[in-house]
Amino acid sequence: MALGKDYAAQSCSLARTLELVGERWTLLIVRDAFYGVRRYNDFLMHLAMPRAVLSTRLRTLTDAGVLEAVRYQDAPPRDEYVLTAKGSQLWPAVYALAMWGEQHYGAEGGRRRDFRHAECATRLDQAGRCPACDVNVPPQDVEMRPGPGAGSVPQDPVSRALMTPHKLLEPLPQPLSQPLPG
Amino acid sequence: MALGKDYAAQSCSLARTLELVGERWTLLIVRDAFYGVRRYNDFLMHLAMPRAVLSTRLRTLTDAGVLEAVRYQDAPPRDEYVLTAKGSQLWPAVYALAMWGEQHYGAEGGRRRDFRHAECATRLDQAGRCPACDVNVPPQDVEMRPGPGAGSVPQDPVSRALMTPHKLLEPLPQPLSQPLPG
Repeated sequence: MALGKDYAAQSCSLARTLELVGERWTLLIVRDAFYGVRRYNDFLMHLAMPRAVLSTRLRTLTDAGVLEAVRYQDAPPRDEYVLTAKGSQLWPAVYALAMWGEQHYGAEGGRRRDFRHAECATRLDQAGRCPACDVNVPPQDVEMRPGPGAGSVPQDPVSRALMTPHKLLEPLPQPLSQPLPG
Repeated sequence: MALGKDYAAQSCSLARTLELVGERWTLLIVRDAFYGVRRYNDFLMHLAMPRAVLSTRLRTLTDAGVLEAVRYQDAPPRDEYVLTAKGSQLWPAVYALAMWGEQHYGAEGGRRRDFRHAECATRLDQAGRCPACDVNVPPQDVEMRPGPGAGSVPQDPVSRALMTPHKLLEPLPQPLSQPLPG
């Protein structure tokens, strides 16, 4: 079996995975979904990405079964984008990439965000385990808090909501507060 | 502090990480480097990617300190691309993405590749730990073997060399055997 010229021809599951999530905007959307962002305008505000790119990426992720569109309002019709079980299984990859980023491109003051085992408040280790309970912690049991390197918080309501300690996957409280004036 | 329109303006270390490795070819090069691929022509043969893209990505990864160019031949001058300590720390992310891929886009017959703790030959769990020794296994202690879903092996010499059980990060034996005829 000859290798195709096209990368898609490679019978490698990592290659197929990267076709889907190997694009920076896509993984930032998935990360935000873990943090509790679900609404189109909230992704747009927090990621400051072009509308067309956001729409395309949300469709790709929904088609791939990573996100599920859930209607939350009928007039006008509006959907929330919620991680599926398949999508939630991306947590170890998102966490590992974020840890590597903190290690090599982190803020001077330390971690921007702390991830803790909600049950015992112990900070997860580099591998996403709770060292106190000696378990791999699934995302729904992870609490996110601002870390020592959080620094000044951007004024948009999504960024501010994300500074409130909360469990991953739990939706941000709606409606979000308004942007600060000025 | 207002959020910039540009994604690069976000003071998030994951965003900065994805600027570097959030591109599918880049992560496939890094994966191959873990597998023991080091030479330009071997990356080219195994990944079947355009030369210009490979050259650009290798330069980006070298500039970022993920790979180091090491001269192995003077006439004509030729470099090998070797993972640095910083690059090796990407293993948990690469492993997590590969595991998710196996889970959702894997071969019908099961895992294409087996990753084992070299010391005790136990297969790593989904989180990259050795369940027998109860340790996170660093890449240099991981042995890679063909898995039950390996299927038919492409005929190029790199793919064939990768089917031989060997430790991660160890360079493929050189010179590689010639492609099979026909």
